Amino acid sequence: MLTRIEDGPADVVREIVSALHPHTGRGALVGVTGAPGAGKSTLVNALIGSWRALDRTVGVLAIDPSSPFSGGALLGDRVRMQDHVLDDGVFIRSMASRGQLGGLSWSTPQALLAMDAAGFDVVVVETVGVGQAEVEVAALADTTVVVVAPGMGDAVQAAKAGILEVADVFCVNKADRPGASRTARELRELQALGDSGGIQIPVLLTTATAGEGIDELSEAITDHRRALEAGAELDARRRARARMQISELALAAVRERAAAVRGAAGLDELARAVACRDLDPYGAADRLLAALADR
Amino acid sequence: MLTRIEDGPADVVREIVSALHPHTGRGALVGVTGAPGAGKSTLVNALIGSWRALDRTVGVLAIDPSSPFSGGALLGDRVRMQDHVLDDGVFIRSMASRGQLGGLSWSTPQALLAMDAAGFDVVVVETVGVGQAEVEVAALADTTVVVVAPGMGDAVQAAKAGILEVADVFCVNKADRPGASRTARELRELQALGDSGGIQIPVLLTTATAGEGIDELSEAITDHRRALEAGAELDARRRARARMQISELALAAVRERAAAVRGAAGLDELARAVACRDLDPYGAADRLLAALADR
Repeated sequence: MLTRIEDGPADVVREIVSALHPHTGRGALVGVTGAPGAGKSTLVNALIGSWRALDRTVGVLAIDPSSPFSGGALLGDRVRMQDHVLDDGVFIRSMASRGQLGGLSWSTPQALLAMDAAGFDVVVVETVGVGQAEVEVAALADTTVVVVAPGMGDAVQAAKAGILEVADVFCVNKADRPGASRTARELRELQALGDSGGIQIPVLLTTATAGEGIDELSEAITDHRRALEAGAELDARRRARARMQISELALAAVRERAAAVRGAAGLDELARAVACRDLDPYGAADRLLAALADR
Repeated sequence: MLTRIEDGPADVVREIVSALHPHTGRGALVGVTGAPGAGKSTLVNALIGSWRALDRTVGVLAIDPSSPFSGGALLGDRVRMQDHVLDDGVFIRSMASRGQLGGLSWSTPQALLAMDAAGFDVVVVETVGVGQAEVEVAALADTTVVVVAPGMGDAVQAAKAGILEVADVFCVNKADRPGASRTARELRELQALGDSGGIQIPVLLTTATAGEGIDELSEAITDHRRALEAGAELDARRRARARMQISELALAAVRERAAAVRGAAGLDELARAVACRDLDPYGAADRLLAALADR
């Protein structure tokens, strides 16, 4: 089904989503994100072990941030999660990042929905990202874990890239390396500077390769989800997610119709006119919209 | 004018763009991008000196990658470019990254257009980014320089984040650090692996703080632009850019209309229905589009 969601024709994907949607809403959606090299895949592998020890089933969607141009993957993150290959309570799927001028693939929300409907207790979406992809993952997840490694540029640089606002839990991984406690302290200090509304985001130290700090991280994720459920926040996040998804689907439909316009009001012809300064971009957009309204 | 483009009402921005558009197309648009900490601002500062020595005027748009949520800037990149504050042939402007679920601010293409129309020989857009922002910068620029520093995670990680396909020129900055030549070699080797269409992208080593390698980098940028002009490629890039801008403007108009729909087909109400599983996202998008068509 994930393959169909990723590669199938639009009407098939639509049918799948419509059929699955009533069965979703039970799984805890956990986003794991951070810069390349922070050790996210190893961390997710360790987290799976922690959740399995509590008898919770886990689905993982690993978004490969390979190029929106080539669509190809240079490294398979799955190789780092092979501890759980023989466990029926774990399902791991890699997915390419296809572009659409958004960091994540267009299929990501639909794929998450399918994994939620499949009944996993925890659904993890793991993505490499600085900035945009992190924001998008945060929009999809109930709980977003931002993974930082010491010595990868300091926390101020990380904050500059916009991760402070999307994190529900911070994880300083590779904590056996020098500088880990400094990075953790910086993350705490930066929160004090920022406008976090008085909420202190937990900063946990882990060494995923040695399994250290993993149970504590897993607990922090569960605590965050419980806090969401206790208040109105889980519902608010779900509404925001639905709002975004509806907008995206509607805009995708418009984009598709726009791409199908031919002739003088078609995108090729309009772009030619703008490139040679016969028309300005706003005037061109008006013509495109007028052509859409006429159809 | 840049302030108006950034903060002004939509109709004012539209008026400005329409008025300026016929006067654009002369400046060489150079994108400079790379991960946080690669030394991009210092490099741009040094490049400005190199261009000024050739009597070319330079405009710089430094996109602050601060959060799409907070809109605030933690660090001012401009402080690193202060060598040129008193030079009338140089204009530097910082701009916030405001979100719109795209890495770059919505105003970026319009601001670039204004700087091009102002007659600068070179217009630089500098942005921090891994992945999406780099792709967007590449879409805006004639020539994209991807800056990598040794020891910031290896070239494979950089490639994973999608920079290989957007680069017209690679720059390994901080070349006085250990590992610089290894990083340069890896970038060359990765190109051999990838589908670059047989084009060898130059890999230059610079130490921006000491001014080393800067003239060579500046020359590589000029060479690339000349090659674009010699073939049909510059025109092709301009058309692609116009195409994207027209689509974005048209979609922004649709998004604005959609946000203005109230009642049962309004986004708030549709999101509520989707969040409580009364409606699936596709059905909701249909209702939204139907409401737009009725207006």
